[in-house]
Amino acid sequence: MAEKITPRGTDYSQWYIDIVLNAKLADYSPVKGCMVVRPRGYAIWERIQAEMDRRFKETGHENAYFPMLIPMSFLKKEAEHVEGFAPELAVVTHGGGEELDEPLVIRPTSETIIWSKYKDWIHSWRDLPLLYNQWCSVLRWEKRTRLFLRTAEFLWQEGHTAHETEKEAVEETLRMLEVYRDVVERHLCLPVIVGKKSDAEKFAGAVSTYCIESMMQDKKALQSGTSHFLGQNFGKAFDVQFQSREGKLEYAWATSWGTSTRLIGAIVMTHSDDKGLVLPPSLAPEQVVIVPIVKKDTAEAVLAYGEKMLADLKAAGLRAVMDRDDSQSPGWKFAEWEMRGVPLRIEVGARDMEKGVAMLVRRDTGEKLLTETGAVVAKAVELMATIQTNLFEKAKAFREANSKGVADRAELLAFFGIDQGESAGTTAATGGFAEGLWCGSRECEAALKAETKVTIRCLPLDRQEGVTGSCCLCGQSAKHRAVFARNY
Amino acid sequence: MAEKITPRGTDYSQWYIDIVLNAKLADYSPVKGCMVVRPRGYAIWERIQAEMDRRFKETGHENAYFPMLIPMSFLKKEAEHVEGFAPELAVVTHGGGEELDEPLVIRPTSETIIWSKYKDWIHSWRDLPLLYNQWCSVLRWEKRTRLFLRTAEFLWQEGHTAHETEKEAVEETLRMLEVYRDVVERHLCLPVIVGKKSDAEKFAGAVSTYCIESMMQDKKALQSGTSHFLGQNFGKAFDVQFQSREGKLEYAWATSWGTSTRLIGAIVMTHSDDKGLVLPPSLAPEQVVIVPIVKKDTAEAVLAYGEKMLADLKAAGLRAVMDRDDSQSPGWKFAEWEMRGVPLRIEVGARDMEKGVAMLVRRDTGEKLLTETGAVVAKAVELMATIQTNLFEKAKAFREANSKGVADRAELLAFFGIDQGESAGTTAATGGFAEGLWCGSRECEAALKAETKVTIRCLPLDRQEGVTGSCCLCGQSAKHRAVFARNY
Repeated sequence: MAEKITPRGTDYSQWYIDIVLNAKLADYSPVKGCMVVRPRGYAIWERIQAEMDRRFKETGHENAYFPMLIPMSFLKKEAEHVEGFAPELAVVTHGGGEELDEPLVIRPTSETIIWSKYKDWIHSWRDLPLLYNQWCSVLRWEKRTRLFLRTAEFLWQEGHTAHETEKEAVEETLRMLEVYRDVVERHLCLPVIVGKKSDAEKFAGAVSTYCIESMMQDKKALQSGTSHFLGQNFGKAFDVQFQSREGKLEYAWATSWGTSTRLIGAIVMTHSDDKGLVLPPSLAPEQVVIVPIVKKDTAEAVLAYGEKMLADLKAAGLRAVMDRDDSQSPGWKFAEWEMRGVPLRIEVGARDMEKGVAMLVRRDTGEKLLTETGAVVAKAVELMATIQTNLFEKAKAFREANSKGVADRAELLAFFGIDQGESAGTTAATGGFAEGLWCGSRECEAALKAETKVTIRCLPLDRQEGVTGSCCLCGQSAKHRAVFARNY
Repeated sequence: MAEKITPRGTDYSQWYIDIVLNAKLADYSPVKGCMVVRPRGYAIWERIQAEMDRRFKETGHENAYFPMLIPMSFLKKEAEHVEGFAPELAVVTHGGGEELDEPLVIRPTSETIIWSKYKDWIHSWRDLPLLYNQWCSVLRWEKRTRLFLRTAEFLWQEGHTAHETEKEAVEETLRMLEVYRDVVERHLCLPVIVGKKSDAEKFAGAVSTYCIESMMQDKKALQSGTSHFLGQNFGKAFDVQFQSREGKLEYAWATSWGTSTRLIGAIVMTHSDDKGLVLPPSLAPEQVVIVPIVKKDTAEAVLAYGEKMLADLKAAGLRAVMDRDDSQSPGWKFAEWEMRGVPLRIEVGARDMEKGVAMLVRRDTGEKLLTETGAVVAKAVELMATIQTNLFEKAKAFREANSKGVADRAELLAFFGIDQGESAGTTAATGGFAEGLWCGSRECEAALKAETKVTIRCLPLDRQEGVTGSCCLCGQSAKHRAVFARNY
């Protein structure tokens, strides 16, 4: 199988698709732009869901479910919102054999349908906050799609909360951003930059959008989660007023926040190699695979030895399997399980069995560890933590090695390998995250994007103090420190 | 709150809707026919999901996700399937601002899209079985809807499996039916009749449909889950052929099976009463509520006493809450928590505290149990099991009291309170499950339905031996034993 993977150096995009297809994470769909999430991909999503959902509940949120169909008129109630989403809508015009009075759209996101109900449920400050989340799919018609990263339909969660005060809503926005950071760094092993979006990049209908951004192996940025402070925009659009503690009528304050199956694409692009998928142990469907090396005369004893080890690994709480297929060679199996990204392989053969040892092979480093049989389980448990940490540290080191402070336009363009004067020149293997000062002007940012495809990914939250100097793009007085990158 | 519930005796349908709305399980949606599942309803669904999903995995199934949009042409590939679903389809005609080349439908069920992919994945007997399930929503345009019981969009799971042989597929069909029976009887406390559908009532595209049927308090039947043996119908429609062990090309054998949020409606209609919702402890969002009875001078001590008890109940693994709201009276709270269906209420007041006792009140029977403080946790744990069993036994006794063997048409009509000669007379408070012999003729069944709205709910699997005699409807020679009922 492994020979089917195009090397990264040859074609990074094809390498990515080869891994997604060959590791059976997802597949194309007969409907253009939609994807099928196959069981091996869905199992990763279930583990991400479990980690997210637990934290949502610990922070007081409840799950609910709102209809997937939204009247077109609802989207129009918030001007920026409809402008942002109108080009991507799928429209239902007929139902039950009849043309509908009003067209319905399949939700691209659910602020409008949810706030239309919040109006019924929020009357007094005593009804607040409402802290709801839903797990569902949404649909945004996309012309150019890529499995997991950008598809018309994708799976996600969307939190929608309503609050008494601006302060509470802002706190909620940042609280959920921190939940995302924690899950993504701890379980997906993706180091992220926590920041705020520029106005040009914020959610359609938000006052401000916060995000976590991670760096892929091709040095492009991928937005891994967003959390929006929506102000009173949806409260006003849907007339959600409540009696305040002071007895006045006030509009409710809102947040929304989301993460999606795009995260699976980020895992692939951050950790994998030319042999195939590399998975963090905490998300891997199988954490350990035992491959018995069987010869005719010793088959029975080696398989029994493997079964005993398998039982011990499972008893220790590891997700372990044994590859009993007798139609493939050990070498083929090694390559196949490497391609599937199983963090640890254990080879058991007759000679090792006699010596009382087994060979443990790490997927992340290829390191081989000859281990005494009695120590295998403890070593495997230890390696799960080691590999988890290593993947994070490796990705962080890669990001740091490909990040650079830039003082002016020339430095920025040089960093991204763009010859001045040429338009949108994109020399491969250059770039990364450039950090520089920025004036805050929408025009200044737009000019850079048009010319180079480099954009402001975010304004890192922990790097905004003491900003003085001039914008690295236009030389005007700077207001923010920004991270610039090409992005997915 | 409790006064908002219409008594069952006055209007059973309104009673049901009053409970669903007042217990905040679900709400109407701005889109006709769709519903909002509110957090208290969704929490019940999450527990049902967890029980189902665990058993699906234990029986070797994996979760996956297939697109919600299906090309119209796919549905037409299986003649009976499209005939069954065509009248209920929602059709997407525009996407991304353009008219689509081919209209897409929102899945009413996913056999067609899934089998179009199975063709890519199934080539050899070694690829079988495929045991996949997905959790999602589906959409069937309905003119007359009722929250949970019949809505255009609803949440469900749909299993879709492919097998080498007919025998394996039939075994799978019955295995999953048994999983449904187990979850529904054990956790929802709904006693069910396990049976096979008549041809007229089977799934569009199935060879045979199996079901579990339960009786609601108005004596109508509700289908709580179905499992279909699809033969090679979809294998042939989507040309899914595989190389058999004997080296021949054969079409794959299929099953599909589903349960939905309709089950929440069944819980409401089976267990609840005029005070509101009654929930089985294993599904209740809160299993125990502590209501402190507070007077000014003893408030602090009573609340501390309650908090201690709350901590102890939680430590014992119970989902317990304390109602600390100081703006409502204890009496109001008793009624409110009864309406919400919390299985056990614990009242704690100053006098009881001094005596070292607390009052436990069962929601299912209203029974009051004065319990020593030190014994409260153990008693509460014990009561969870007692109430769970009692709900099941009570529902089973109700069903048995309202079931009757009928020998001929006159007995059947009398049982359903239908005067012979009158058309579709439906005297309230009559009927239930009538068991009688049946000839197996589609016309005979159709005539009964047209005349009386009574239908064959199923042919109970464990009651088909030794069928001799004449059809209770037409007097012809009988082939089956059938359960007749009005139904949802």
